[in-house]
Amino acid sequence: MINAGIIGATGYAGEELLDILLRHPMVRITHISAKIDKPRKISEIFPRFKNRIELICQHPHPKDIVAQCDVVFLALPHTVSMEMVPLLLKHGKKVIDLSADYRFKDAKIYKKYYGLSHKDKQHLHEAVYGLPEIYRAKIKNARLIANPGCYPTATLLGLAPLVTLGFADNTSIIIDAKSGVTGGGRRIAEGFLFSEINEDFKAYKVDCHQHAPEINQELSKWAGRKVNATFVPHLLPLDRGILTTIYVKKSQKREARSQKLIHLYKKFYKTEPFVRIREEGDFPRLQDVVKTNSCDIGIKESDSIIIIIAAIDNLVKGASGQAVQNMNIMYKLSEKTGLV
Amino acid sequence: MINAGIIGATGYAGEELLDILLRHPMVRITHISAKIDKPRKISEIFPRFKNRIELICQHPHPKDIVAQCDVVFLALPHTVSMEMVPLLLKHGKKVIDLSADYRFKDAKIYKKYYGLSHKDKQHLHEAVYGLPEIYRAKIKNARLIANPGCYPTATLLGLAPLVTLGFADNTSIIIDAKSGVTGGGRRIAEGFLFSEINEDFKAYKVDCHQHAPEINQELSKWAGRKVNATFVPHLLPLDRGILTTIYVKKSQKREARSQKLIHLYKKFYKTEPFVRIREEGDFPRLQDVVKTNSCDIGIKESDSIIIIIAAIDNLVKGASGQAVQNMNIMYKLSEKTGLV
Amino acid sequence: MINAGIIGATGYAGEELLDILLRHPMVRITHISAKIDKPRKISEIFPRFKNRIELICQHPHPKDIVAQCDVVFLALPHTVSMEMVPLLLKHGKKVIDLSADYRFKDAKIYKKYYGLSHKDKQHLHEAVYGLPEIYRAKIKNARLIANPGCYPTATLLGLAPLVTLGFADNTSIIIDAKSGVTGGGRRIAEGFLFSEINEDFKAYKVDCHQHAPEINQELSKWAGRKVNATFVPHLLPLDRGILTTIYVKKSQKREARSQKLIHLYKKFYKTEPFVRIREEGDFPRLQDVVKTNSCDIGIKESDSIIIIIAAIDNLVKGASGQAVQNMNIMYKLSEKTGLV
Amino acid sequence: MINAGIIGATGYAGEELLDILLRHPMVRITHISAKIDKPRKISEIFPRFKNRIELICQHPHPKDIVAQCDVVFLALPHTVSMEMVPLLLKHGKKVIDLSADYRFKDAKIYKKYYGLSHKDKQHLHEAVYGLPEIYRAKIKNARLIANPGCYPTATLLGLAPLVTLGFADNTSIIIDAKSGVTGGGRRIAEGFLFSEINEDFKAYKVDCHQHAPEINQELSKWAGRKVNATFVPHLLPLDRGILTTIYVKKSQKREARSQKLIHLYKKFYKTEPFVRIREEGDFPRLQDVVKTNSCDIGIKESDSIIIIIAAIDNLVKGASGQAVQNMNIMYKLSEKTGLV
Repeated sequence: MINAGIIGATGYAGEELLDILLRHPMVRITHISAKIDKPRKISEIFPRFKNRIELICQHPHPKDIVAQCDVVFLALPHTVSMEMVPLLLKHGKKVIDLSADYRFKDAKIYKKYYGLSHKDKQHLHEAVYGLPEIYRAKIKNARLIANPGCYPTATLLGLAPLVTLGFADNTSIIIDAKSGVTGGGRRIAEGFLFSEINEDFKAYKVDCHQHAPEINQELSKWAGRKVNATFVPHLLPLDRGILTTIYVKKSQKREARSQKLIHLYKKFYKTEPFVRIREEGDFPRLQDVVKTNSCDIGIKESDSIIIIIAAIDNLVKGASGQAVQNMNIMYKLSEKTGLV
Repeated sequence: MINAGIIGATGYAGEELLDILLRHPMVRITHISAKIDKPRKISEIFPRFKNRIELICQHPHPKDIVAQCDVVFLALPHTVSMEMVPLLLKHGKKVIDLSADYRFKDAKIYKKYYGLSHKDKQHLHEAVYGLPEIYRAKIKNARLIANPGCYPTATLLGLAPLVTLGFADNTSIIIDAKSGVTGGGRRIAEGFLFSEINEDFKAYKVDCHQHAPEINQELSKWAGRKVNATFVPHLLPLDRGILTTIYVKKSQKREARSQKLIHLYKKFYKTEPFVRIREEGDFPRLQDVVKTNSCDIGIKESDSIIIIIAAIDNLVKGASGQAVQNMNIMYKLSEKTGLV
Repeated sequence: MINAGIIGATGYAGEELLDILLRHPMVRITHISAKIDKPRKISEIFPRFKNRIELICQHPHPKDIVAQCDVVFLALPHTVSMEMVPLLLKHGKKVIDLSADYRFKDAKIYKKYYGLSHKDKQHLHEAVYGLPEIYRAKIKNARLIANPGCYPTATLLGLAPLVTLGFADNTSIIIDAKSGVTGGGRRIAEGFLFSEINEDFKAYKVDCHQHAPEINQELSKWAGRKVNATFVPHLLPLDRGILTTIYVKKSQKREARSQKLIHLYKKFYKTEPFVRIREEGDFPRLQDVVKTNSCDIGIKESDSIIIIIAAIDNLVKGASGQAVQNMNIMYKLSEKTGLV
Repeated sequence: MINAGIIGATGYAGEELLDILLRHPMVRITHISAKIDKPRKISEIFPRFKNRIELICQHPHPKDIVAQCDVVFLALPHTVSMEMVPLLLKHGKKVIDLSADYRFKDAKIYKKYYGLSHKDKQHLHEAVYGLPEIYRAKIKNARLIANPGCYPTATLLGLAPLVTLGFADNTSIIIDAKSGVTGGGRRIAEGFLFSEINEDFKAYKVDCHQHAPEINQELSKWAGRKVNATFVPHLLPLDRGILTTIYVKKSQKREARSQKLIHLYKKFYKTEPFVRIREEGDFPRLQDVVKTNSCDIGIKESDSIIIIIAAIDNLVKGASGQAVQNMNIMYKLSEKTGLV
């Protein structure tokens, strides 16, 4: 049994981790902590866990974490993780960080988008970007996983075949993404009040969201040249799910090819347990993936343009499910263990 | 033209007042204020009002209010109104207070439920409880209106015929009420976040809500004896509307009567512009009343029990629409002016 | 491994059964059928099951069912089950019927509320009402389970201690129930369109719902006298969950007792894996039980009245989860197997 | 007073027309009809109109329509309008058709997208496309208005300045549109059931929606060359509103210009009563326009790409409000009469 700790258990991603790990046959949750005023049973904070787990949720004390855990899930706000990671690694723990702290290889981008200098550059390069479909081999032996953002997960899985095969005109990628409210975390602010979101819909951080550089970092690596995709996120009046509609011009290389994109996508993801390619004319909707770790992808190709629609549950494949998938890989378990 | 001021314009009730008064043919909005950091155009705060009104919303200064308004709508949190009312009355203004500050004749109840001593007992008895269907004659000549709470409006209109006619067993009244989220005001608290309310439903303040004594004050007055109804409010995952399901045992007096309750209700509300009684077997739903000033009432009578279902829009008949209805009465206008 | 069949797999309860049984470690789903035009992979009908199950969903042929299943879940519209049950029992199958067909001991009530004569009176008396908290012993050896309705499950669990202990004035029970939309089944009718339900709330079948006699049958049995509770269901604008607010006058017997009701409830349900009693002043909300098999109960006791609030997921504890709980009991498995 | 008739009063657009026209100071509603089984009071069909209008809604009989109306609003399904229009025009009626029947100048496109041959080609060319911001002069003297589709209204207002000024690379226009559920009409089909839409989001008719040729017809006219924009609509889990996010590459012509696009947009729409351009960095959300006839537009311009976000209420500016705006123009009334 793996002894697992969840730091930041009171946020949406932490709560989801609890739900997933409680069903995981190889995991024992041994530590729960969060920034809270005084220790409380986690089943008091979330009554739905009553009778399933009776651990106390406390303020995170490094000593406890080190003593109680083999693997630590950090479901913390950005900038908090990097204060903890060095100590955890030093004590031989495996760390899966759900924040953005270790996602960028270039600390300058982190500073630009998250507003402060990185404090643990030493481990920045060691961290493996935890997108199993692309980096599985590295994840296997990693000590520190930078779990991808929710928008990047959906977008990158949608674009990976196209960009790595060189079929996309990389100068013209447009990503129109839509997310449920939990994507923003359990944030107490006027903009997240029920009546501000219910029966409403809007774009936000238009062309300036912090997930854009994360997407572009990966796309650029795969394309072998700088990619600068246009990314516009929107807020849906619902709890869970990201659906991203991606528009790409074909590259000349693509134009020469006759094989259908759907076949190329199916081949690319052939052995993947959590990526499902739709048949022609069929596209995913959020209900197909919500509460699952799947990423469903539909593709439409016309003369000039390729439209890709990818859907995930932002809290599962976009956060906690993918984190557990990464843990499964790190522990050489079947990747689907404890996941649906 | 009536010069009207709205104090507390940034809350849900204040915003609704703006919307209603902007369509009112006899009103000119001359003052808008709220507790805000610095003056801002109201159309910047609520872009939907752009091109309709360009007034600046400021911190409320009594001098301005007095100079600019004939009638003042106080859409303030409880306990703030009573600091303003004496001055406004002194300067000859008509005041319609949407808070609870002037609803109770007994200041002790106010203290018990709102947590502090009343500071303007002088005007407590002068204030008229602004339920036009019952107190129209008094409203006509009032300087100060205590606009009823949203739950009390729906509940009292649902019970008025039964209780005033003596057909209810007053010891057994049960009020199971359900309200949309705007009933709680624009409050920035975890419990009002989108994902805490969406796809959820719950009772709250079970048998201890501050609207219970307001309901009981009126019922007791009408019954001529102390009534102590059981009141349980619930929170609906939607923006607007209150539906209250009321269960009453028949009084012995009633049992002697043969006339159908529906007929008695129709007679009682015959000339009312905003109360609509449903036919037998037909019951109101929120969509019938949302965005209107109507209170719709359905009645089912069995051998032993009477079930009354009343529906209103909590922001219109339950707050701002009723406030404007009261203003219309005070100014001898047709009661429907500017209201739907 | 138990070979299980789901008849009526395309309805909400059938879909939920699929989801639960696919995670159940002791079950192999061997048959899926429904009233459909032509056979289709179930993963085409519900893309979210793709890669999890690839069975074909067909029109139900008794021969297939008999050949392929040990236990059969009937998630069919009312009146269809009773045509299949005799044959299945004859062939030695265990049957768990989620419809109302076998819930009433008195066939006349069935006829009155479901509109036609019962066709299998022979098995009506053999059928065990599948409320494990009350009838566990009988369920153990049953061949045919009448799985309770969703409203009755929540209501009966909320009232069982009170009524069996004789603490309720049985002449005054009022049940104000609120249900999510899936409670009505996947019915294609104007009243179930999105915009007819979204931002709306209403009572329906006021005091004449077919679950009332089901509730009264059980309450009467437990009370040892005819109970005729008032039952008013309401429709919530959300997918899942029932919350029922029950008002009961204390019996004289209760008045003499000093022990708190909460303690009596805790004792009554002490060993139950799926009933959770809240502490004083704490009440359940739907989010506490949605996607779980739990029934959460909160209790408030005042001088004259007892208020009980019970919450379940109508598709889980109110239908498919309870059906699996019953199967677990019939197969001598731990009752929690495959359930959360 | 204008005598107005609404044909198709029971659909969402017809219901909205009723609501708008009942507040219109210059209109008397004299005829209401729809495809219904037997005549019913409209206030029985929609109880929210009780006490506001007591007309009977009947099956539409041309003779009645001709006798009772000056202007006729056709809120009918596509292909039904063209059977009525010739007769109405012959009798000197003004006709505002909310269906697609008269929107295309090229009857072949109509046939391709709506599936049948046009039956009234005679009036196809007379019909004026009722987008007042572009075609006001023609609307003034028109007898027959083809009221634009909801998606085209938002999209065309968002693109008009850019395309007419020649600043868009017309080969690269991408329109990612999102609509509330009423956009699909009151259609009784499984896909429109509450639980199929609630907590869900999806694209539909990807790159093959019938509003694409309507958009392209207008853009091509304005650009003076064939424009073939990519159009992907999505379905939002809410009642009302369209938000469309449009991505356009700058034309070379544009690159030469130094003036900000926002200023050009403000100038273009300077005198328009219902188009509001947002300041830099500010973008519309649905709540800004819902229940109003406004179209709000936000613009972001980067080195290579222009992002335009336009929002309307699909039932108001996207249908019934625009229809009334057109009527106001036809009758030389102030364009804002009866509209907000």
